[in-house]
Amino acid sequence: MSTERIRHAGLRNKIMTAEQAAEFIQNGMTLGITGFTGAGYPKALPTAIANKAKAEHAANRPFSVGVITGASTAPECDGMLAEAGAIHFRSPFQSDPTLRNNINAGNIHYQDMHLSHVEQQMRQGFYGKFDVAIIEASGITEDGKIIPAMGIGHANEVLKVADKIIIEVNTEQNAKLEGMHDIAFDIGVPPHRKPIPIVGTFDRIGSPYLECDLDKIVAIVLTHAGDRNSKFAEPDEMSKRIAEQIIDFFSHEVKAGRLPKNLLPLQSGVGNVANAVLAGLQDAPFDDLEGYTEVLQDGMLDLILSKKMKYASATALSFSPDALQRFNDNIDFLRDKIILRPMEYTNSPEVVRRLGVIGMNAMIEADIYGNVNSTHIMGTKMMNGIGGSGDFTRNGFFSMFVSPSVAKGGAISCIVPMVSHHDHTEHDVMFIITEQGMADLRGKSPRQRAELLINNCAHPDYRDMLRDYYDRANKAGGLHTPHLLMEALSWHQRFVETGDMRIK
Amino acid sequence: MSTERIRHAGLRNKIMTAEQAAEFIQNGMTLGITGFTGAGYPKALPTAIANKAKAEHAANRPFSVGVITGASTAPECDGMLAEAGAIHFRSPFQSDPTLRNNINAGNIHYQDMHLSHVEQQMRQGFYGKFDVAIIEASGITEDGKIIPAMGIGHANEVLKVADKIIIEVNTEQNAKLEGMHDIAFDIGVPPHRKPIPIVGTFDRIGSPYLECDLDKIVAIVLTHAGDRNSKFAEPDEMSKRIAEQIIDFFSHEVKAGRLPKNLLPLQSGVGNVANAVLAGLQDAPFDDLEGYTEVLQDGMLDLILSKKMKYASATALSFSPDALQRFNDNIDFLRDKIILRPMEYTNSPEVVRRLGVIGMNAMIEADIYGNVNSTHIMGTKMMNGIGGSGDFTRNGFFSMFVSPSVAKGGAISCIVPMVSHHDHTEHDVMFIITEQGMADLRGKSPRQRAELLINNCAHPDYRDMLRDYYDRANKAGGLHTPHLLMEALSWHQRFVETGDMRIK
Repeated sequence: MSTERIRHAGLRNKIMTAEQAAEFIQNGMTLGITGFTGAGYPKALPTAIANKAKAEHAANRPFSVGVITGASTAPECDGMLAEAGAIHFRSPFQSDPTLRNNINAGNIHYQDMHLSHVEQQMRQGFYGKFDVAIIEASGITEDGKIIPAMGIGHANEVLKVADKIIIEVNTEQNAKLEGMHDIAFDIGVPPHRKPIPIVGTFDRIGSPYLECDLDKIVAIVLTHAGDRNSKFAEPDEMSKRIAEQIIDFFSHEVKAGRLPKNLLPLQSGVGNVANAVLAGLQDAPFDDLEGYTEVLQDGMLDLILSKKMKYASATALSFSPDALQRFNDNIDFLRDKIILRPMEYTNSPEVVRRLGVIGMNAMIEADIYGNVNSTHIMGTKMMNGIGGSGDFTRNGFFSMFVSPSVAKGGAISCIVPMVSHHDHTEHDVMFIITEQGMADLRGKSPRQRAELLINNCAHPDYRDMLRDYYDRANKAGGLHTPHLLMEALSWHQRFVETGDMRIK
Repeated sequence: MSTERIRHAGLRNKIMTAEQAAEFIQNGMTLGITGFTGAGYPKALPTAIANKAKAEHAANRPFSVGVITGASTAPECDGMLAEAGAIHFRSPFQSDPTLRNNINAGNIHYQDMHLSHVEQQMRQGFYGKFDVAIIEASGITEDGKIIPAMGIGHANEVLKVADKIIIEVNTEQNAKLEGMHDIAFDIGVPPHRKPIPIVGTFDRIGSPYLECDLDKIVAIVLTHAGDRNSKFAEPDEMSKRIAEQIIDFFSHEVKAGRLPKNLLPLQSGVGNVANAVLAGLQDAPFDDLEGYTEVLQDGMLDLILSKKMKYASATALSFSPDALQRFNDNIDFLRDKIILRPMEYTNSPEVVRRLGVIGMNAMIEADIYGNVNSTHIMGTKMMNGIGGSGDFTRNGFFSMFVSPSVAKGGAISCIVPMVSHHDHTEHDVMFIITEQGMADLRGKSPRQRAELLINNCAHPDYRDMLRDYYDRANKAGGLHTPHLLMEALSWHQRFVETGDMRIK
């Protein structure tokens, strides 16, 4: 395998196999592993560590590590490690089925965190000592600076706090990624922090390279493997109706003078519906759009390629295989239109609020008072995690949550009397949008919100049930936020017992 | 009554009675009324408006207004207006019993908002048009600049957005307040916002005066009445034990190198327990403390007077009668140690996070997974509101919630299986402290949190009940966050039915 991506001669001496590098990982360690929504995760080390764990377990020796990533990774990282029983603690976000099952079974302690909190809490010592950083790079410069790959996440911080560093240089990643990143100075630890000088979406405030103490680099592993490039579903009728409503609403707000003609920087959560909303903007009457988001997916890439969007800032690129091809084919055009930053900057409350980012995220369910559940199925099962949705929801100019009004063929209503887990409260959520309609919750009391959510957003099959709940809660003496405490979560219980929230 | 506080000759011509000024208020208007936690609210206009409302109602004419304040006011403001049925919408915070009862009865629509969101949402037009601003001042300068009184809150913004302005000049307020305020430039509307240049607690970034278009001033009313200066309870044994634990924890974190020796800027919520924590710092081994808080109460005042605290920034001064006397007696000493700012600055996520504010707030209840209810009694009754607790909890260096472990003589546990209303989620809450002990939730999974909260924080009378709930939720197939959906809120229901959360 060619070593030309490692331009620093001295560091070439540190090249070894993943198995050799895995010898630096010991039982009980805390690892900072890069990876953000299927981009930028190490491709070889996790398997080597998983194999080491299995061998240790076979020899009746304990072996497990704590793993703090940027966000989700992929089966060959989180999946392998979880399957080998090699993880005892995991944060801040995940989406791998094997890992998820182990978290839900109580085998792995998982802390579900706001992504904007991760780097500062690492720096502040809230996670204790970091033993080893394992990061993916697309190359190393002559002077030992690291060129990130398709995602940055917490890479900047993990290089600083870890005692030892292992770098995977992935030659599959496009060499022209060099220069697209913007790695700013450390935000620092209070009381010595300064304002983050980003005042426009595309402001560059740092260098294109990650830097670290080269003496901490103990191993370099060469890989040649793609990211987890999953296909998106084609936007369906449901997603298109959601997108249409958002676009109509934007037009309305532009007309009312509350939004500039080119809107405000767009953030879009991960997934098919969010992607469909961006796809819908392709034909919408807004130009010169900007993106300030966490993960840049197909929808936003295509807005840039079609010149509807001027530029976008993100911490990771997460494309379908087709979109990845379009990205690589057009990388010369895209190089000055996409910036990749550490997640402490993309998700920064300071910057998100200053820029007035429009936050659009998917949800599992909302309740009639506007609280949103983004993480738990039926109150107890962790799905993925809150990710950056809280960062954008709390601080965005608009905070929008989208979902089809029903799931599982109608057996689940996404508008419920009370959400079974609260990730975003009534204080933060401004808009709920389903294919049925939109609820604008700004300046509304709980009772007004209930009317809007039941009438505008709930599926017709559930409207009478919701209204009945609300009316009975009112009559039973429900006060500011009417609820029937013993019935508030009964829809979820009914689903658990019968497979349907509807009363048969 | 002397008019010397109105140094602008032309504005003296606008002096009139409250009754005359109330004629500017018409049915259906939206009013911005200053007032923040019993300081800075108008003393005369509300009664005049309430009397007008009563007269209109007696004549069978509708009369009600929307009222957006800084935070809570007092009986002679919120109380009078609510009693007269003169309010149809109210935001963002309140604590008056009559107003609260009307909110809970559904007579008044109340939106319970993060205080840091209020000014920007007014500016962005999310509340629609503001008709009249009613603000309290301690004087007016020769060139028509307004000297605020003991609280600022949203005064800066309300003067800008309202069509007409009514100023109450309160001669009871100390004339030496002039110069203590710091009214910064408007933060602005995206995409034209800049960083807020506060990098130290005591940085002055604006002028000591509020400014407005003088042509908008339609009336000036002279008043001579004190603020709502309520007595604090003397710190009891319970509060002292809570304070001791926080202080021990600070010592521990200083020793671990995670906190500077003089800690980080302190924020303290309103109320007796929060006040007791500050009182406890009087004898703690920390000097040169700083405060960056929303409301400065007796405890923080006394830390400044004893020179344990160097200086503090707040948006309002809310003192007991005795503390007010100490404040006025020492105002020459205090003038360069206290800054009063608009609440958009004191509660700013950007500044709170940058400075690393230690947020300490009271709660109604927490659940075994670390979610916190700050607003609702038994799930449906609004108490006061979230106020700034969310601003400091989400963005602070530490986020702490304090409460005695039981209330109502033991009939209510403040640690419950599931909170009956969610204001601060598991993603935001780092520490729960009762007189029983402390739970450090950093880096902990829900299951680990449950152990800590049950063992360390719950009252012994409730530990077995909580453990029983948790164990059964686990056995019943509870996954990442074990819950029994039909039992999660049963403790609250039991209290509603029997007056006791304990099973008799």
